[in-house]
Amino acid sequence: MQHDHSDSIKRLKIIEGHIRGIQRMLEKDQYCIDIIRQIQAVGAALNKISANLLDQHLNTCLLSAIQSNDPTEQERVLGEITEVFETSQKI
Amino acid sequence: MQHDHSDSIKRLKIIEGHIRGIQRMLEKDQYCIDIIRQIQAVGAALNKISANLLDQHLNTCLLSAIQSNDPTEQERVLGEITEVFETSQKI
Amino acid sequence: MQHDHSDSIKRLKIIEGHIRGIQRMLEKDQYCIDIIRQIQAVGAALNKISANLLDQHLNTCLLSAIQSNDPTEQERVLGEITEVFETSQKI
Amino acid sequence: MQHDHSDSIKRLKIIEGHIRGIQRMLEKDQYCIDIIRQIQAVGAALNKISANLLDQHLNTCLLSAIQSNDPTEQERVLGEITEVFETSQKI
Repeated sequence: MQHDHSDSIKRLKIIEGHIRGIQRMLEKDQYCIDIIRQIQAVGAALNKISANLLDQHLNTCLLSAIQSNDPTEQERVLGEITEVFETSQKI
Repeated sequence: MQHDHSDSIKRLKIIEGHIRGIQRMLEKDQYCIDIIRQIQAVGAALNKISANLLDQHLNTCLLSAIQSNDPTEQERVLGEITEVFETSQKI
Repeated sequence: MQHDHSDSIKRLKIIEGHIRGIQRMLEKDQYCIDIIRQIQAVGAALNKISANLLDQHLNTCLLSAIQSNDPTEQERVLGEITEVFETSQKI
Repeated sequence: MQHDHSDSIKRLKIIEGHIRGIQRMLEKDQYCIDIIRQIQAVGAALNKISANLLDQHLNTCLLSAIQSNDPTEQERVLGEITEVFETSQKI
């Protein structure tokens, strides 16, 4: 199963730059609320990547796992979806 | 497709009572932070129900939709999972 | 300190009706994803009430606690804000 | 108002390394769910930094803004708290 992750990698490089920018804001002791807003923006950008990855996963790995008709494999992939869903509710 | 939703219904009845309790706290003008904590507890309880329903859905409706080998149906059910995942990140 | 909670109470009564509607959806075994969407809508409505209550709290209780110049009291009210903020990140 | 942000800067440097690790996972097309879990771990780590920064902010900037007895300034700092609280509910 091969995925095209070029978009997610590009987004993560931007986020990496964003994180370094936040470090500089902290070093310069800029206004806390502005720093919190930047951290929240990074969080939202990460959520977008997770959702894109989940969408790709569902349409490739999950689809083929279910079509394999292997109950153990089906249970595993479906359990993982519930797990990441639960975690997404908690962050 | 039939599901046993008795557990979720029972949890929602408890939540309904919890919501009425919060109304009384507001009517008595109790301490705001205590009220916010109760609302957050209800939010967490609702998240638990959503996760249980998703788990049931994946193992019944989604499984049979994918096994139907109808690409339109597959696309629809998989798109819905990504959608509720994205919403769960935002609340 | 007296607050006008009539708006929050009204919103909670609507949510209570919404919760009963979700119970009926479960009893009729309606489509799981539609039920999850309704639960997520309730979650978002609860978040709105929490934010309104926090806003009222900050402008009344917190303001007077800080102006009291009692360090113990200040520490307590400020610690509570961080605590509900952390919880809001987790639900 | 000077803050000691050394802990937050250290945490952000770790997160920066974590983000680069996730890029490598994507380049190697590792298992999507494992990548999503790593992104969620970064999200949780960012939330922790936000909560720490808020705590510092409340005990320094907010405290002095309120003690200034300037109503415009008070309104501004309190409004910002509600705003970051609302955003934290949405990511």
